[in-house]
Amino acid sequence: MDATKRLGGSNYVLWGGREGYETILNTNMGLEIDNLKRFLELVVDYKHKIGFDGQILLEPKPHEPTKHQYDFDSASCLAFLRKAGLENEIKLNIEANHATLSGHSFEHEIAYAIANNALGSLDINRGDTLLGWDTDQFPNSVSELILPFYHLFSNGGIGKGGLNFDAKIRRQSIDPEDLFYAHIGGMDVCAKTLLAVEKMINDKKLSDYVSKRYEDWQKDLGNFIHTKGTSLDSIHQKVLNENIEPEPRSGNQEYLENILNKYL
Amino acid sequence: MDATKRLGGSNYVLWGGREGYETILNTNMGLEIDNLKRFLELVVDYKHKIGFDGQILLEPKPHEPTKHQYDFDSASCLAFLRKAGLENEIKLNIEANHATLSGHSFEHEIAYAIANNALGSLDINRGDTLLGWDTDQFPNSVSELILPFYHLFSNGGIGKGGLNFDAKIRRQSIDPEDLFYAHIGGMDVCAKTLLAVEKMINDKKLSDYVSKRYEDWQKDLGNFIHTKGTSLDSIHQKVLNENIEPEPRSGNQEYLENILNKYL
Amino acid sequence: MDATKRLGGSNYVLWGGREGYETILNTNMGLEIDNLKRFLELVVDYKHKIGFDGQILLEPKPHEPTKHQYDFDSASCLAFLRKAGLENEIKLNIEANHATLSGHSFEHEIAYAIANNALGSLDINRGDTLLGWDTDQFPNSVSELILPFYHLFSNGGIGKGGLNFDAKIRRQSIDPEDLFYAHIGGMDVCAKTLLAVEKMINDKKLSDYVSKRYEDWQKDLGNFIHTKGTSLDSIHQKVLNENIEPEPRSGNQEYLENILNKYL
Amino acid sequence: MDATKRLGGSNYVLWGGREGYETILNTNMGLEIDNLKRFLELVVDYKHKIGFDGQILLEPKPHEPTKHQYDFDSASCLAFLRKAGLENEIKLNIEANHATLSGHSFEHEIAYAIANNALGSLDINRGDTLLGWDTDQFPNSVSELILPFYHLFSNGGIGKGGLNFDAKIRRQSIDPEDLFYAHIGGMDVCAKTLLAVEKMINDKKLSDYVSKRYEDWQKDLGNFIHTKGTSLDSIHQKVLNENIEPEPRSGNQEYLENILNKYL
Repeated sequence: MDATKRLGGSNYVLWGGREGYETILNTNMGLEIDNLKRFLELVVDYKHKIGFDGQILLEPKPHEPTKHQYDFDSASCLAFLRKAGLENEIKLNIEANHATLSGHSFEHEIAYAIANNALGSLDINRGDTLLGWDTDQFPNSVSELILPFYHLFSNGGIGKGGLNFDAKIRRQSIDPEDLFYAHIGGMDVCAKTLLAVEKMINDKKLSDYVSKRYEDWQKDLGNFIHTKGTSLDSIHQKVLNENIEPEPRSGNQEYLENILNKYL
Repeated sequence: MDATKRLGGSNYVLWGGREGYETILNTNMGLEIDNLKRFLELVVDYKHKIGFDGQILLEPKPHEPTKHQYDFDSASCLAFLRKAGLENEIKLNIEANHATLSGHSFEHEIAYAIANNALGSLDINRGDTLLGWDTDQFPNSVSELILPFYHLFSNGGIGKGGLNFDAKIRRQSIDPEDLFYAHIGGMDVCAKTLLAVEKMINDKKLSDYVSKRYEDWQKDLGNFIHTKGTSLDSIHQKVLNENIEPEPRSGNQEYLENILNKYL
Repeated sequence: MDATKRLGGSNYVLWGGREGYETILNTNMGLEIDNLKRFLELVVDYKHKIGFDGQILLEPKPHEPTKHQYDFDSASCLAFLRKAGLENEIKLNIEANHATLSGHSFEHEIAYAIANNALGSLDINRGDTLLGWDTDQFPNSVSELILPFYHLFSNGGIGKGGLNFDAKIRRQSIDPEDLFYAHIGGMDVCAKTLLAVEKMINDKKLSDYVSKRYEDWQKDLGNFIHTKGTSLDSIHQKVLNENIEPEPRSGNQEYLENILNKYL
Repeated sequence: MDATKRLGGSNYVLWGGREGYETILNTNMGLEIDNLKRFLELVVDYKHKIGFDGQILLEPKPHEPTKHQYDFDSASCLAFLRKAGLENEIKLNIEANHATLSGHSFEHEIAYAIANNALGSLDINRGDTLLGWDTDQFPNSVSELILPFYHLFSNGGIGKGGLNFDAKIRRQSIDPEDLFYAHIGGMDVCAKTLLAVEKMINDKKLSDYVSKRYEDWQKDLGNFIHTKGTSLDSIHQKVLNENIEPEPRSGNQEYLENILNKYL
């Protein structure tokens, strides 16, 4: 962290890739989580002591090489940080490949972190959802990145964070040129995705749809439900009095997928 | 809940099997989580109003029929409950099959809930880890239940909760007798597991091993680390002063697995 | 099959979605496979008797609703058909969603079927590789279809087969319009993919790379290895005599992925 | 193979752990399968030339480290061997961990190989079905081995093959004693399983159930269906004439699982 500060770094990632267990038989999970909390408190204290003003980040990862890691996914990290009282001190560094290994899409993990004010930075190395380990490949698909970037940039961007390629080329890519092709391809894919996302955001087709889908929550019944003092009884009474009969509405998934496809 | 109260019920489970999304394209996750929070606040208020003194429980489940559910696993539920300020009002109903669908073992989810003081009750219907949906089968394996029950009963048992079979028989089990065999088999497996776990707990072999593995955390260095006022600097200094050189220790997984096998 | 003949149908698909077992405990797999063989012999005889000149097709699917199906994937079907002596009578109807459920990409199953002269027709409904069941969604991604179609059309096309949408819309898509959007979107994606694949095939960049990678198999050493009468001893002697020292070559995966991206 | 012969070995395993592809983009699958066929022909010729009378074995494995291997599972190997005309020369070495990685239970792969007269030998190192890579752990569960061994020993045993532990201990098991515990535990589990399976076979409860379930295939209608000259028409006519109305029968899965549990 001292070196990061001297180098003007903005982020300090704690990759917990071995902070878990091989077998629950030898493990006191409560004690381990307390120790993890204590360690992070000490790190945060140190950050403030030396005046490092970058972000401290946890990187969710479910397993590999361990059987089970405590920072399994974004939600696991947040459950922990909230219990530890460290939610305002530590953000998340979300990796595409780790997201899918934990059963979530990359865009889910990003949207979830944003909704919880916890997004710090991104590792955009991709995996292969038909394989069960961390392949750490360079990003190579606009269609895989478009929703992650859309969520990111329609919510204020990434702040002090960035897009990290800690990616490596495949075992069979043994020429020096392969590294260039991988970097060039990865950067091109990011650039193309950014151009597409700019259009998506300015067009507002998706965001208008979503606003409209939820707009009733800003209206009478929605406000009433969220008003302090409202109870299940008073909602029940209101529904009877006003003869409220909400009808199911289509989620229009296929329509929205068609719209998304126009940007690809 | 009124009916549950009149019937003397001890638990009221909110199974969120459709509280999620089919596509993130039409979804405002932040708003949905706020609505979920509000709904649960109203439910908890109602519980207190009518004087129902049972537990309110969330049941983690990652997906199926939806693409993604908010109560993905125990950690997701806890992240949510802590944010919503409902951690002391709502506990978890953990299901074996949902645990494995979310990438965790059943014993992990139970141990995690216990370590976080969040365990409410159990659904012990099993799944098939080679299949990707909820098969909801009756428990039929002592070796699958022994660690879940060991964690449960070496930590004070299940309190107001219980062991629920919401299990169903397989599509091809079409005779009335099949339901009897399923119930009898499931209960026998639970009974055998309880007998084995009683021995495990009284023998203390596993618990002594774990206590010993972590005992240094109660000694000088462990206490120092956890003392208020300790910093990374002061730990660093202590390590240098006292020439502390911790050596890696084996996790002895295979030895512990052999011990466990003696109870099966 | 009589109706198919009268309607001028070109294909008759035997979807074996329940031809498997729920539990191996009650199953005589050898006998079941023999019965399946006998059933298919009878079907093939009937086809010839009535003069139906379309294709008879098996549709590989690994499981769901059953625990395990005999037609698990293309290779399982071929192992069976070759044993049964029915390889020349029955081809495969490959579905995108079933391919991924069995651990293969759609393009793998197609390329494998082509390499084994077994491709009959395609169901192009897609799944979700983060989910473990058959979602049967309409195709909505050019980047998912480009390699399947590339393999198909650079190997002579689909003959008597076709592209089937047996797809359905999602549970939440409840408006009549949703079905239109799904069909229109699916057809548009197919059309765009066909245009991209036409360019890929005419450009020959990928096919030239592959030809070049394997061209040594048409040269001296390659021919020698494949000549009747050649033995491990004679290859060994040739390598010594001619001081043959093959060097590892890069697979250039990232370079090739960049080329593919130009067509998307 | 020369060394194996001199040492009196009975088996020679060709582990194809890299015989696959990292990307289908650079791969001519048909040519690769032809080359694999040629290689195996040369190996078989060499075996006969030197008079090695052991078994040559392929070891199915779906992937890792490669993206996709040709010997994906037992069925893939058999499809290949039948096409190559090598079915009588090469058998299979089935590994528990590879079986589950390919989506099959260990007992399925064994029963399938037996039903196809293709079983050669077993690697009994287990995996973890919640993890997506080859953990190669020692066997530690009677309940996981009982069905594999039951199929094996109720079908004549393993012949020239054996039970291989190529297993390794876990990364955290760093004491020399750990290797002993792992071997002892693995052998004990095998021994206990053998004792249980001996009882299962002698009791005949499962085998009698299965015989009875399929016994109609030895009776009039079953024989008629399998008689040369029978056609769908003649079966249809027989069903009408004799008013044959088969009723669905329960698969009794839960009853059979209870019986199995008596041996554990």
